[in-house]
Amino acid sequence: MDPERTEVSTLGEFGLIDHLTKNNEIRNASTIVTVGDDAAVMDYFGKQTVVTTDMLVEGIHFDLMYNPLKHLGYKSVIVNLSDVYAMNASPTQITMSIAFSNRFSVEALSEFYDGVYAACDKYNVDLVGGDTTSSQKGFIICVTALGEVAPDKYVTRSGAKKGDLVCVSGDLGGAFLGLTLLEREKKVFLETKGVQPDLENQDYIVGRLLKPEARRDIIDFFAEKQILPTAMIDISDGLSSELLHICKRSDVGCVLYEEKIPVNDMARQFAYKLELDPTACALSGGEDYELLFTINQKDYDAISMNTDVSIVGHITDKEDGSIIITKGGNKYPLTAQGWNALK
Amino acid sequence: MDPERTEVSTLGEFGLIDHLTKNNEIRNASTIVTVGDDAAVMDYFGKQTVVTTDMLVEGIHFDLMYNPLKHLGYKSVIVNLSDVYAMNASPTQITMSIAFSNRFSVEALSEFYDGVYAACDKYNVDLVGGDTTSSQKGFIICVTALGEVAPDKYVTRSGAKKGDLVCVSGDLGGAFLGLTLLEREKKVFLETKGVQPDLENQDYIVGRLLKPEARRDIIDFFAEKQILPTAMIDISDGLSSELLHICKRSDVGCVLYEEKIPVNDMARQFAYKLELDPTACALSGGEDYELLFTINQKDYDAISMNTDVSIVGHITDKEDGSIIITKGGNKYPLTAQGWNALK
Repeated sequence: MDPERTEVSTLGEFGLIDHLTKNNEIRNASTIVTVGDDAAVMDYFGKQTVVTTDMLVEGIHFDLMYNPLKHLGYKSVIVNLSDVYAMNASPTQITMSIAFSNRFSVEALSEFYDGVYAACDKYNVDLVGGDTTSSQKGFIICVTALGEVAPDKYVTRSGAKKGDLVCVSGDLGGAFLGLTLLEREKKVFLETKGVQPDLENQDYIVGRLLKPEARRDIIDFFAEKQILPTAMIDISDGLSSELLHICKRSDVGCVLYEEKIPVNDMARQFAYKLELDPTACALSGGEDYELLFTINQKDYDAISMNTDVSIVGHITDKEDGSIIITKGGNKYPLTAQGWNALK
Repeated sequence: MDPERTEVSTLGEFGLIDHLTKNNEIRNASTIVTVGDDAAVMDYFGKQTVVTTDMLVEGIHFDLMYNPLKHLGYKSVIVNLSDVYAMNASPTQITMSIAFSNRFSVEALSEFYDGVYAACDKYNVDLVGGDTTSSQKGFIICVTALGEVAPDKYVTRSGAKKGDLVCVSGDLGGAFLGLTLLEREKKVFLETKGVQPDLENQDYIVGRLLKPEARRDIIDFFAEKQILPTAMIDISDGLSSELLHICKRSDVGCVLYEEKIPVNDMARQFAYKLELDPTACALSGGEDYELLFTINQKDYDAISMNTDVSIVGHITDKEDGSIIITKGGNKYPLTAQGWNALK
């Protein structure tokens, strides 16, 4: 390798991407939105298409001790569809590539594909291609999703304006708590073989981790109510990290109210039991796959009609920074402590 | 894992894909060509788009002992562009996803991306997205390429008709011979550390393996001469395997003439030196990334004007089988012994 050696960890995932793409050029007129958003946008003769891709690696993104293969197939599609919805687009096609070692049987792979097809069925998406190959170790999944969006209705991360409302769908922190529970039970199981895992009837948080859904309903709601968010991103790395992405790309600041952050009751109770702060789980826990978006205040009445959307803050001038106001009324700068696959 | 266990090797790569996709349904009107060709074709309001994806796994598809990272970045783009050209389409965008262990430095990844950008530059393609993540072991690359094709000008594997001419671009077997040489020198190097590899000035075959090109010129030639092949595929697994794909999908047979198969002179000499049959290298050696296509006889005059295209046979009735006629005039059934990542 190179005598000059900079560790990837010194840059982090986003720093690395910035470094590797700093000289990236656009040559085709059809390329509208490139690297740096949930998906890229292409314009083919006035019709706009989005494309996004995600890789899931065994031991990094999932653990086959507690990720059933069918759920894993389902989830690997969902995480990509979520990126398509985060552009205000509708997914239409996916490709699925997998690499696997010889410990995987045809039956195991069929189970995985059952999950893939279940997701395609539910979200009306076609599996149109892919690749199947070997790996020396572990299971690696790479999905690309394509989607359609009405001309100029795509939503990037960069359009948030001062005064806009910050909104989030569903509830947050559940997937992280599910992961915490499953990791605890895995540890117990490995230390004392034969002990059955005790999931304490925490179906909600376990389901949030193992079988997430993508928020198609929110995109449909926008279309129905003619709301066009000013910025949008899906929450895969925690609320803080995603909101900071919007602020950075939109060149604005924000105020987030702790008391407004939606946390499911069962998740909250379980967090307390583990002596974890539910707010911290929502801010920094990943994989909820909810949508975070900003809207103009004129859309307040319309958005209020959706009981599954919470208004959690508003956009400010960049100079005012990105802050969170706690339930006790204290102000703190918002920091990204989200999950980082490169740490 | 499942108590019922079928080894993947019993099905092979194509058998596995057939098995996993046998119940695949198409739900979107925009999906025209799905799993089973070089790329999928989508129709977005009359404008046709192709998408293809390929995964390259360290230790399976490449060896970092002799694949320089910059070349590897270049090649990982090329193999996907080749699939786009094999649909008679022009590539426009790619996404690049990589997973890597902590032995990779920022400098190493930059070198890889230098190759990616060099390919984008040469083929006028935009890098529009991707994913960067960790792996527990090795380097894994997954590229998706998008391309455009004039309405109804895309070419699948399934349109070959009796009497059509079978054509191939460039020459075959070189990449396999390059691989054989590099594997030999790697073995010598590992057995006797410090010995410098002896590549015997075999730049041509080594280049064929390490830095292949995609045949954009052939697609441009088709457009210029208004030739529309009846079927086309890129040669990644050897001529036999690819021609049998066309025959199977087109429901036809074929006759291939050994004496017509194009082999580069340096490659031929090197094959003899290793006591290998150059024809066998062309038939079964992979990774040449040439185009194999069939054309109607009416296009004979036009295709003859391209000195870099060889007519190697013709299409017959399915009942006549797929055969090769040797230089000595013997007939043998054509068999696929191409490279198989799942063996």
